[in-house]
Amino acid sequence: MPRLLDNVCSELQRLPGIGRRTALRLAMHILKMDPEAADSLSESIKRFRHEIRYCASCNNLSDTDICPICSDTRRDHSTICVVEQVQDLLSIENTGQYHGVYHVLGGVISPMQGIGPSDLKIDLLADKLLTGQVREVIIAISTSVEGETTLFYLLNRLRAFPDVKVTTIARGIGFGDELEYVDELTITHALLNRREVDSGAR
Amino acid sequence: MPRLLDNVCSELQRLPGIGRRTALRLAMHILKMDPEAADSLSESIKRFRHEIRYCASCNNLSDTDICPICSDTRRDHSTICVVEQVQDLLSIENTGQYHGVYHVLGGVISPMQGIGPSDLKIDLLADKLLTGQVREVIIAISTSVEGETTLFYLLNRLRAFPDVKVTTIARGIGFGDELEYVDELTITHALLNRREVDSGAR
Repeated sequence: MPRLLDNVCSELQRLPGIGRRTALRLAMHILKMDPEAADSLSESIKRFRHEIRYCASCNNLSDTDICPICSDTRRDHSTICVVEQVQDLLSIENTGQYHGVYHVLGGVISPMQGIGPSDLKIDLLADKLLTGQVREVIIAISTSVEGETTLFYLLNRLRAFPDVKVTTIARGIGFGDELEYVDELTITHALLNRREVDSGAR
Repeated sequence: MPRLLDNVCSELQRLPGIGRRTALRLAMHILKMDPEAADSLSESIKRFRHEIRYCASCNNLSDTDICPICSDTRRDHSTICVVEQVQDLLSIENTGQYHGVYHVLGGVISPMQGIGPSDLKIDLLADKLLTGQVREVIIAISTSVEGETTLFYLLNRLRAFPDVKVTTIARGIGFGDELEYVDELTITHALLNRREVDSGAR
């Protein structure tokens, strides 16, 4: 295999979910691209890695020191939604239904992977609560073992702020999910957290 | 979404099989890489696109004017295996069983995609046959409609060289394939091309 092809394949294989065959297919596609398009792909990777910053307020990815969400005065800064990672923030933003701000932890507590509370941006969150401007913290982290551990740790830390309301996002049956295929724990929660149908809606 | 993240995601999405979600996952992985590793990925794409060449003899990808296979004097230059694309050449090389040289067409005739015989490196193959050094041409192109069209076109062109033996790779049941799931055409060919078991092997 030519060295240049071998190189690009090895580099592409460092990315998750890309094996030898996929890397080769991607390389052959890059070969068919305009040289300018290949440059632009190459440049975007380099610039992204070197120039992207973390918002000093919420730890979201940002082009600037403070991300556009945190600097948007039209958003409700008294409500903070705590998420694990930037992807989760983007998913919530895509709904267009949330008008508060976020706090990105940057992961969950995982002793197996050597990630402790100090590796997450929890102090930064506590600092924001100290200002006394926050009324509600919505915890939107996954229900994995690590997620639950993180939840309990957070709840513990949040006890220092008795005036702040703490909520977690609802667990239940997703729209479009078939009850037949939903796991028992989710069904149990969905039953326990059932909602009364408003008499007006009947 | 930050502009730098949006940029890298859009660029990654130009690659085949990479959608918005995968692009985002790749970008987040790039973010976790060492800056040097990201540079190296970026650089390898750029260099590959700009510096890779096509072998002047067989149209294989190469770092040099003539690829290492064509310049290897230990290989049998009287046997040429004709393949559609570089990936096919690599698959055959991986077997370690072929000692001849190759000729990469660079595609197959496809009127639907506007690819005619002149878009493929068929003249380059004919030029090599004119030297009178070639004794056998093995055609190893796919059995798709386009592949068969290309095969017939090639056979027609090769009539000009009656001294050159022309073969196609065997079609039959793959090792590990279950007869139950093999298509009828393949079974028909496998029956027609059945081989007598050597009396010594019985």
